[in-house]
Formats: sequence, structure tokens, C-alpha cells
Amino acid sequence: MSKRLVVQKYGGSSVANVERIQRVAKRVVSYSKKGYDLVVVVSALGDTTDELIELADKINSNPSEREMDMLLSTGEQISVALLAMAIHKLGSEAISFTGAQVGIITDNSHTRARIIKINADKIKEELKKGRIVIVAGFQGVNLNQDITTLGRGGSDLTAVALAKELAADSCEIYTDVMGIYTTDPRIEPKAKKIKEITYDEMLEMASLGAQVMQPRSIEVAKKFDVPLHVRSSFNYKSGTMIVKEVKKMEDVLVSGVTLNKSEAKITLCDVPDKPGAAVQLFKELAVSGVSVDMIVQNVSHTRQTDISFTVAKADCSKAGKIAKMAAKKMGAGEVLVDQDIARVSIVGVGMKSHRGVAAKMFGILAENKINIEMISTSDISISCIIKKKDAEIAVKQLHAEFGLNK
Amino acid sequence: MSKRLVVQKYGGSSVANVERIQRVAKRVVSYSKKGYDLVVVVSALGDTTDELIELADKINSNPSEREMDMLLSTGEQISVALLAMAIHKLGSEAISFTGAQVGIITDNSHTRARIIKINADKIKEELKKGRIVIVAGFQGVNLNQDITTLGRGGSDLTAVALAKELAADSCEIYTDVMGIYTTDPRIEPKAKKIKEITYDEMLEMASLGAQVMQPRSIEVAKKFDVPLHVRSSFNYKSGTMIVKEVKKMEDVLVSGVTLNKSEAKITLCDVPDKPGAAVQLFKELAVSGVSVDMIVQNVSHTRQTDISFTVAKADCSKAGKIAKMAAKKMGAGEVLVDQDIARVSIVGVGMKSHRGVAAKMFGILAENKINIEMISTSDISISCIIKKKDAEIAVKQLHAEFGLNK
Repeated sequence: MSKRLVVQKYGGSSVANVERIQRVAKRVVSYSKKGYDLVVVVSALGDTTDELIELADKINSNPSEREMDMLLSTGEQISVALLAMAIHKLGSEAISFTGAQVGIITDNSHTRARIIKINADKIKEELKKGRIVIVAGFQGVNLNQDITTLGRGGSDLTAVALAKELAADSCEIYTDVMGIYTTDPRIEPKAKKIKEITYDEMLEMASLGAQVMQPRSIEVAKKFDVPLHVRSSFNYKSGTMIVKEVKKMEDVLVSGVTLNKSEAKITLCDVPDKPGAAVQLFKELAVSGVSVDMIVQNVSHTRQTDISFTVAKADCSKAGKIAKMAAKKMGAGEVLVDQDIARVSIVGVGMKSHRGVAAKMFGILAENKINIEMISTSDISISCIIKKKDAEIAVKQLHAEFGLNK
Repeated sequence: MSKRLVVQKYGGSSVANVERIQRVAKRVVSYSKKGYDLVVVVSALGDTTDELIELADKINSNPSEREMDMLLSTGEQISVALLAMAIHKLGSEAISFTGAQVGIITDNSHTRARIIKINADKIKEELKKGRIVIVAGFQGVNLNQDITTLGRGGSDLTAVALAKELAADSCEIYTDVMGIYTTDPRIEPKAKKIKEITYDEMLEMASLGAQVMQPRSIEVAKKFDVPLHVRSSFNYKSGTMIVKEVKKMEDVLVSGVTLNKSEAKITLCDVPDKPGAAVQLFKELAVSGVSVDMIVQNVSHTRQTDISFTVAKADCSKAGKIAKMAAKKMGAGEVLVDQDIARVSIVGVGMKSHRGVAAKMFGILAENKINIEMISTSDISISCIIKKKDAEIAVKQLHAEFGLNK
């Protein structure tokens, strides 16, 4: 009978220092002694990646992406070697590999590469020898043997892709929180840990501000139906299972409330209301690499309209400049940039089959005298842009009124 | 007509910080603009390697050598990526490679691997595209795709091996000193930079304490007749050429005086003077990985003798323990450990054809009332172990009396 195979992924905070690396080693060894085959994916130690980015920036503020990958991939390489040493110290067998060594083949898109295929023979060979296999997260290699990286949070993707390729029995994502919560516990102490959540809900929550997992890795898990277990590396309690379908007696209407304060709103006032007015603006934003999130254009009964959109705060000044140039060309009026906004969202697969959820949300905000500036909806989520000062009360009220305090 | 190819190697002190990396980039670009094809080998930034060793030691004081190589090789990978970025910033084309990517194939002796072969196709390809090729020093890969390292100072070896493989027109070793000196200028300010020195003399000087180049890399340079130019990365003056034969009107008797304070002397007193007495001792030292340097056994007219040997200070306590156990077994007396010794040596190919050099050296020391505790000689060198307190005066006197102050 073949052993159960577990893929475990430990994030940067779980291996931030010597003592934490030792703790991860203990956990890994304890699983191995229970009779599991183990593949362990590790991120770079603590803030290593940010420190390397800062160092590169001092040398070249616009570095080659190939060289950036060469540089950043060292972070995970350090982690895997140290974790292997820590496991050896506990008397167990372990061997570490870079993404390249373990056959994680990607395309050529440096700094945001996509995995094309994984040649897992080496891992299988080492598992057969009874070794714990440690794999550097976040990285791969293209067909030209250049080192590539998978983008922010890419270690999650490494873990999910390996779990799929190896047909692992489970894939555990270790982090510094206990799992996925109904909302951020730092804002609402009544937030509850969610036992089970669907891939779709998790995807919405991740893209709406819950920073526990990389959205792309959830997409891949969903595509290949890899069940994920998000849990804490600081204790042995079970966390949140991310699965295809949650089986419950009754559908929950809303699974979680998310908050995102990292966006800014840009408004072009008095835009002449004729077809195609906004095309040029959004084209230029795209060319400049600014990712636009929500867009609202007010229907107008005059010949002029306002166009508002949101962007990441990091892109705010770039987007503002582009908007000002576009406004001039279009003959529009003032351009307003507002950084004091927040996006509050409710997420739940239950919305699909229930009406009136949006109306209820707007009502709750209205009752609390919170003005809604923009609205955006999907199948399983509703987002409102509100003033940043109202953000926390909005989260608390929505969390309570949608029955998540129980 | 094909362009002249230069291999340049920059040590850790030459790339210790952002400003120095930028300076190296400027130098490299200036050579490239003169029309040279350039292959640049880089060591890890400043003390990175030592810091990584320290980190590993906190986790496992006896780390797996394979994992140690995995860990340490990141140092050079960081350097090459940063140097490539710095060169790009200056508007020139450059591309960085790890040892593995560039086909430096080694044996399996982790932490002290030997290069088996180099597959330089990739380098040639990139040079043809007009790019400056930057190679991580100190590292390679074995046939199993495991990362290996070449031992302390291994970047020198990388440079020499690449120069040989690519049939480079010259191989420049950049360091923080101006070249090879007749003795350490910190001890004797009258020390002179040597214009030309033979491989053999350089080898002796390197193994006797001159820490400018890794001895193995000089051996390889000698074997394949790769002329080396040791020079400073802080200015454009020429340094010291290391060559097969130095052509001069008259042979110089002594080329340099070296000093090594990193050894300790261990003496077993009153060892019963019978054949094979010392065999077991040196066998056990070898098994424990202690490298013994000089050995002196006094001829004795009683039935007892003293055995003295020197080891690196780092091995001193280990060697002392082994010696004490061996002394007990042999029925010998006390074991004395003396860390306050120094080895002073004179080196010169001229010695081969001249007699009386040793006598002159002993005379100079005697005149200065410096007691000689042990003596060791080779074809082109003579070394004496003396008290550490006498070391500097010995160096100065030998430097003067052998005519090196001129």
C-alpha cells in the first residue's frame, strides 16, 4: 500500500528566523514519522525578497526582469537549504531542490511566469528513498534554462501545482493566521474562522483584499480540484478547507466580508458624453501597465458625464497624470484623485440563488449613514467604494447583519 | 578578425557594496568599449559567504555538505544579477549565469569540488551577440544536477578554468591590493610590488600565507599555461603578472618573504623512541580531518624523543585532544600546545641554483637573536617556525638582507 502524500507550503513568516525554521522542521518531521510522504515548499525568509528588491532598486530602478528573477530566486534557495539542515539535525532524511532542479518548467514571462509542466520524476525518486523533499517555492526555469519566478505569492502556486502533479492526498498552506476568517479579526474581533469555503468564494475574497493566498494558485487548485487546507504554522489546530462545494444543510448567504484600503479613486469630471470618449483613456492606462479595477460612468441627462475608476495606490500618480492628459484631449474638466477611499465587499455562493442581497447591503450602509460612491458586483460578491473613515464601521455592521457574528 | 577575449575576476571586496558594484560595472564597460570580448567572474558580496556559514551553524553545526553548497552558491548568484543590472544601467548589454547554467561540471565532492569539464557553448553564443557575460564564481554542478562549490577562493579557479576553456588572451584577477608584494606592506612599508612572478613561486607564497590567490587556481593556471594578471579594482595601474618563466638578466635569489600566524605548534614530549611510534598519531589526525603541516622529530641519544607538528589554529583544540590520547597510549610524557608561534618563509626560484641561502637565512635570524623552533624546506622556499613576538622583526630583516628593500 502506498503512503499518503502531503504537500506542505510554508510562507515567509513561518521561516522568518532560525527558531521558526526549527519549528517548521519539527512539524515536518512529526508528519513524516506519522508515515506520510512529504513534499515541502518554502518561501524566502521573512522580508528577504523585499530587501533584495530594495538592493536592486539602488543599482537600477528599472532592472531587467531576467536578472530580477536571477536575484530573487536566491531567497527561496537559502530557505530550502536551511530547512534541510534543520531536519537533518532532528535525525531525519531530507533533500532540497531549486525550482529548476525539480523540473518546474515555465514560460518566458520573467517575474510572472506561468508553469507549463512539471517533471516530477526526481521528487518521486527521492520520496521512494524515504526522504522529505524540500522545494524552493516561487521559482521555475524556462526552456532556455533561465531562472524564472511566478510573481508575488508564487510559492502557493508551486505547492498547488506540485500537489496536482503528484496527485497528493492533501495540500496544506501554512501561514501566520489560523485560516480564512469571515472578516479581518483585527477589525472585527467577532470574526469567525471558516471551516470550509469554495474555490470561487476564496477567489473573490482573495482578489477583494483577503491576502491569505495568491489568487492564481486558487484558480489552479479549482481547475484541477486540489483540496487546500489553509492553517497556522504556530499550532496544530485545523484551519480552513478550500473545496469545490461546501455541503451544508442550508446555504449560507454571505460567507465573508472583505476590506481593501489599497486603492485610489480617480474621477474625470464633465466629460463630453459621446461614444468612445473613454476608450483612449483606458487604452493608455493599459499600455502604461496600470491595472484598472472598478469603472463607473454616470448616465447623464446633460451632454456631459463623470467617469470614475479605481487603481492600486501604487499606480495612483502615474494614472493621475495619464488621466489629466486624456481629460485635456477630450475637452473634459477637472481630474479628481481621492486616496481616502475603501472598498468593502460581501462574498458568498449563496447569493447566486437569493435575491435582495445587494438591496440589503445598501440598506445596512444607508442606515449607518455611509455614502456609497461606486458599486461593482459579480455572481458571488458585491463591492461598494465608500469613504475610508467609514470602512471599519461598515465591515462590523455588514458582518453582524449578515449573521456572521454567531 | 576575432576580438580579444579577456576573463576578469572580481573578489568579494571589489563588490562589497552598491557603490563598488557600480565601479566594477564602469570598469567592465570601459573594457568592452575598447573592443574586448569580456567574461566576468564575480564572488559573493563582501562577507556574504561568512554570514551564510554563520546562519547555517546556528541551525546545524555539522551541516550536510550538499545543503551547504545549495546555501553558499546563492551569494555569487546575487552578485552576478546585481552586476548585470549595474552594467545595463550604463547602457551596455550583459547577461548573468550561475555555474550550473554555464556548464561548469564538477565531481561530487561538495564544498571542495573539482571541475571536470566546462561546456562553454552558451558563453560563446552570448559573446557573439555582443553581450558581456557574467558568471557566478566558486560554483558548479555535478552530473546529478546538484549544485557544488569549489572551496575557499574558488572564484579564482572559475576564472582560470574559463580562461583556459575559452583560450582567453588574458585572465585578470581583481582584488583590493595592487598585486603581489615582496612581503606584506602592512608589516614592511618598504615592500615592493612584484612585476612578474612564476607560477611556482606564487604557489609557494600562496600556501605560505600570501592570501591573494587560491593555490589550486594557480596550479591549474600553471598546468594550462594561463598567464594571470593580479591587480587592483580600485585603480587602472598594472599589477603582477604570474607566468611560466620570468626573463631577467640575473636571477633573483629571493622573490618574497611571507608570514603566517594562523598555525599552532603541538609537541609530544618524551616519546619512547621506537619505530612506528608516531604512525598512529598522524593516522588519527588524518581521520579526524586535521591537516598537519610541518613535522619535526628530534634525533635523540636517549631512548626518548620529542615530536612536534603544526596545525591550523582552527584545528588546534581537536588536534591537542588527539595528541593527548595518543601520548597516553604510547607512554609518552606531556603534550604542549603553543599558539604563540609564527612561520616566516623566503621564496624564490633562484634558490634552486644557489647554495647557502638557508645558511644565510638562519644567520640573519640568529644575528637578531631570534630562536628557530622548526625548519621546513622545499625546492624554492625555506620556512622557519619562530616565536610570534619575533615575527615582524624577522620579516623586516629578511626582506632587507635579501635585497628586497631596493
